[in-house]
Amino acid sequence: MTNASDYEKFKEMIKDIDLCMLTTVDEHNDLHSRPMSLNSDVDEKGNLWFFTSSNSHKASEIERTPNVNVSFIDTRQQHYVSVSGMAELVRDREKIKELWKPVLKAWFPDGPDQADVALLKVRMTKAEYWDGPSSMIAQAVSFVSAIFTGKQVELGENKKIEGLG
Amino acid sequence: MTNASDYEKFKEMIKDIDLCMLTTVDEHNDLHSRPMSLNSDVDEKGNLWFFTSSNSHKASEIERTPNVNVSFIDTRQQHYVSVSGMAELVRDREKIKELWKPVLKAWFPDGPDQADVALLKVRMTKAEYWDGPSSMIAQAVSFVSAIFTGKQVELGENKKIEGLG
Repeated sequence: MTNASDYEKFKEMIKDIDLCMLTTVDEHNDLHSRPMSLNSDVDEKGNLWFFTSSNSHKASEIERTPNVNVSFIDTRQQHYVSVSGMAELVRDREKIKELWKPVLKAWFPDGPDQADVALLKVRMTKAEYWDGPSSMIAQAVSFVSAIFTGKQVELGENKKIEGLG
Repeated sequence: MTNASDYEKFKEMIKDIDLCMLTTVDEHNDLHSRPMSLNSDVDEKGNLWFFTSSNSHKASEIERTPNVNVSFIDTRQQHYVSVSGMAELVRDREKIKELWKPVLKAWFPDGPDQADVALLKVRMTKAEYWDGPSSMIAQAVSFVSAIFTGKQVELGENKKIEGLG
């Protein structure tokens, strides 16, 4: 199994999951999660993109602590995915318009030009997945952002890949 | 709606979810999650109990940073639950035997007396849930550990309860 096939598997596992849980760290160091809709597939650079309001609580949380986790769960297929990453708020209007979808009007009635529309970009630094029933321990596969930076990493015995992007 | 009924609803939402995602903070401040089996219902004091190995990576993570999150997702019913809490490792043999279930032999072949068997206790400090389709924003209900300590808290307009346990 190569890094690339791990990554393809990862993308396959998350593609039908509408809502994931985004976990952030608040000003008291408490961890909070909330369901978020992933606007699009992870991009070719290993970034996840979410729409959010720049006035939201999570926007101020990631400004203080950018370290976040995104968990994907499909209870029917028993898919469990953990993405560790660094989050930042992106207000670039071109990018907002590029990723905009009509369904977002439910949250931003004035459309992509609404003043508080922003993107929450999560740069993946590590991902792990657990696939199938009773796989809590044995089948965990992790990979890191190295596959997006072209650095080579070793695939260990236990199918965990360690390295730094 | 009272605190107690929020709490009953919360317990109802998590009772059929086999695996949740436990998010911990590692030594680099990165957030990792992994599927965990909740051994029993939340107890009458608002604690979640998990079995773990005292040699596991998460055991050393919570020693350094006890702040954790536990996310419950039921994709079929569209239930999303976030529990913020403080975790600690419990090695009390009586408690281990009290919560032990035969299925745990898959992870601890020597049974409850195996040297590295431990409990990971998460004391809930805040919980929020989102119930039903398209409820990402409007129907979030949060409640805090006050219901376990007997302190009275106010139920706000937006159905969020703030307070400290």
